[in-house]
Amino acid sequence: MRTRAAVALEAGKPLVVMDVNLEGPKAGEVLVEIKATGLCHTDEFTRSGADPEGLFPAILGHEGAGIVIEVGEGVKSLQVGDHVIPLYTPECRECEYCLNPKTNLCQSIRSTQGAGLLPDGTTRFSMLDGTPIHHYMGCSTFANHTVVPEIALAKVRKDAPFDKICYIGCGVTTGIGAVINTAKVEIGSTAIVFGLGGIGLNVIQGLRLAGADQIVGVDLNDSKNEMATRFGMTHFVNPSEVEGDLVAHLVELTGGGADYTFDATGNVNVMRTALEAAHKGWGESIIIGVAPAGAEISTRPFQLVTGRSWRGTAFGGASGRTDVPKIVDWYMDGKIEIDPMITHTMSLDEINEGFELMHAGKSIRSVVLY
Amino acid sequence: MRTRAAVALEAGKPLVVMDVNLEGPKAGEVLVEIKATGLCHTDEFTRSGADPEGLFPAILGHEGAGIVIEVGEGVKSLQVGDHVIPLYTPECRECEYCLNPKTNLCQSIRSTQGAGLLPDGTTRFSMLDGTPIHHYMGCSTFANHTVVPEIALAKVRKDAPFDKICYIGCGVTTGIGAVINTAKVEIGSTAIVFGLGGIGLNVIQGLRLAGADQIVGVDLNDSKNEMATRFGMTHFVNPSEVEGDLVAHLVELTGGGADYTFDATGNVNVMRTALEAAHKGWGESIIIGVAPAGAEISTRPFQLVTGRSWRGTAFGGASGRTDVPKIVDWYMDGKIEIDPMITHTMSLDEINEGFELMHAGKSIRSVVLY
Repeated sequence: MRTRAAVALEAGKPLVVMDVNLEGPKAGEVLVEIKATGLCHTDEFTRSGADPEGLFPAILGHEGAGIVIEVGEGVKSLQVGDHVIPLYTPECRECEYCLNPKTNLCQSIRSTQGAGLLPDGTTRFSMLDGTPIHHYMGCSTFANHTVVPEIALAKVRKDAPFDKICYIGCGVTTGIGAVINTAKVEIGSTAIVFGLGGIGLNVIQGLRLAGADQIVGVDLNDSKNEMATRFGMTHFVNPSEVEGDLVAHLVELTGGGADYTFDATGNVNVMRTALEAAHKGWGESIIIGVAPAGAEISTRPFQLVTGRSWRGTAFGGASGRTDVPKIVDWYMDGKIEIDPMITHTMSLDEINEGFELMHAGKSIRSVVLY
Repeated sequence: MRTRAAVALEAGKPLVVMDVNLEGPKAGEVLVEIKATGLCHTDEFTRSGADPEGLFPAILGHEGAGIVIEVGEGVKSLQVGDHVIPLYTPECRECEYCLNPKTNLCQSIRSTQGAGLLPDGTTRFSMLDGTPIHHYMGCSTFANHTVVPEIALAKVRKDAPFDKICYIGCGVTTGIGAVINTAKVEIGSTAIVFGLGGIGLNVIQGLRLAGADQIVGVDLNDSKNEMATRFGMTHFVNPSEVEGDLVAHLVELTGGGADYTFDATGNVNVMRTALEAAHKGWGESIIIGVAPAGAEISTRPFQLVTGRSWRGTAFGGASGRTDVPKIVDWYMDGKIEIDPMITHTMSLDEINEGFELMHAGKSIRSVVLY
């Protein structure tokens, strides 16, 4: 079949919207009609050429929602008409990782996914001249139709709006999951969130959901204050307005350091600040942001010997097929909010404008509606 | 009263054994006759002048055992004749830290202890000319008699030999505690221990106690192999004999990286290796060693985002008054071994020879018998 897609032809260039060929699903695969997709910084990281592992040409996008159109041989857990969210972290429920409750990093199709291929080592997408087009993070939601392995699709309720729940495919789950799955924040905790963008806001609402007493948000942009407060932030700190050492300021504000700190910036210097602003004795600092290629974090080991822990999270520690449907329920039940974070919607033809809004800091999330 | 002590008069000089004045215990303090004390690398770190926070003159030593001779006003938990182990990490059972089960770092007397003073801000030791002599880590076990706060003394059974259980005052508890209190290693785990000295050997016997399946020891000195094997090590790796990348070698040996890794070297490069040799998804790396002043650890944040945790431990995460008596029981019951690690004993007059043995790598532990 043919479908319409925004193709990243080469690093650093705008996406090009065009018709592409799409082969049907092979065994264990599913053809999905994407109804909506968010634009995430990780897509931009690859599009821009900053990602050393980026492959071109590729169809980017990993934060989508849609409807099952066709299932391949042997697919049992999904059928035509099911509503699904593609998962860049699959959940095979059979590999060593899926069987270990300490991790969500299913490795069953990692090598092919990392190479921009489906599990059989080939692509389903190609240019009209036959040139193969790489898949991206196993999702490629910047195409109106895509083929995804069954183990990388979360089946969700049919009454949930695609244009909102697509965000659960990455940002919402990453932020909320960092709090509840990775940090396992307890009621009454104190926390600091660095970076109040699309991930940081979800960390904040995760902290509210977990019953944190003090939720400090840190951002260089004062305009983030209002929205973060709406999502549960109790104190706002703009580092440019702090006299003296930021760590000392945060330690004083939190009465000795926070029980939990979260980096949602991807800046390795901020990651260090986040660790050192965690409470002596028991503070945990969770890295969520993706750092530039080659960047390193550092600190004095004394920070760890005196009881701080340095950890990280990917996809919020969520096992997607199991956890994503629950988060959709939480949205539908009003336990979490998504609507105010979807600041812009656009058509696929306008997708490059979405990236411009991201660069200008004007959007929290832009969503493409097919 | 007068007592005999090895005094660190100035940084980098040998200790000088001399008579010193010792005032009796004030309220909440206890006079202890030290019967035996181990010599630890931390004493040497301060003696040598490498510790930027070192104070002189001081009576070093923090790994002792002895008998209560006199108790100060208000002391309720101890009486004359009790056998005790001084604790450089006290346990007041009242401060914010003691009341938080996530940490053992009692802060109740930290500021005075760090300043080489007892809690009232003065010293009990002085030179015969009246010059005050600093306490060290709240213990000063390189004196035949010392005064210690009640909250910094673990009461232990009377049938346990001082010349062995003194080692529980630091090395044994630090190593075993890192495994059972900090890492909470589960039965069947895999582990790597970097550095097979006095701490590393205790990590190894802690791992054996915890039921680890694979216990890899890493040391540049082949002669460590035999003793470490005796304590439970299952595989020995000498990095100088590994071709290619050490991390890759260890990851292969442990089937993907170890569930738990421990640094007992204090070398920040080794700490990085330890982190990166931990298993993707769930591996935890615990820093035990004390790094040189100003040294920093570093790694790519990707190591944490993909599921490794970087943590540290002080005094093995043990709450001393509660946990040290249990470890003495374990020794007396034969659950752990100490005797083979006490490789040298000597009189106080010979204490500098003990540090020479440490430097030459000839001893695991030297113990001074009073």
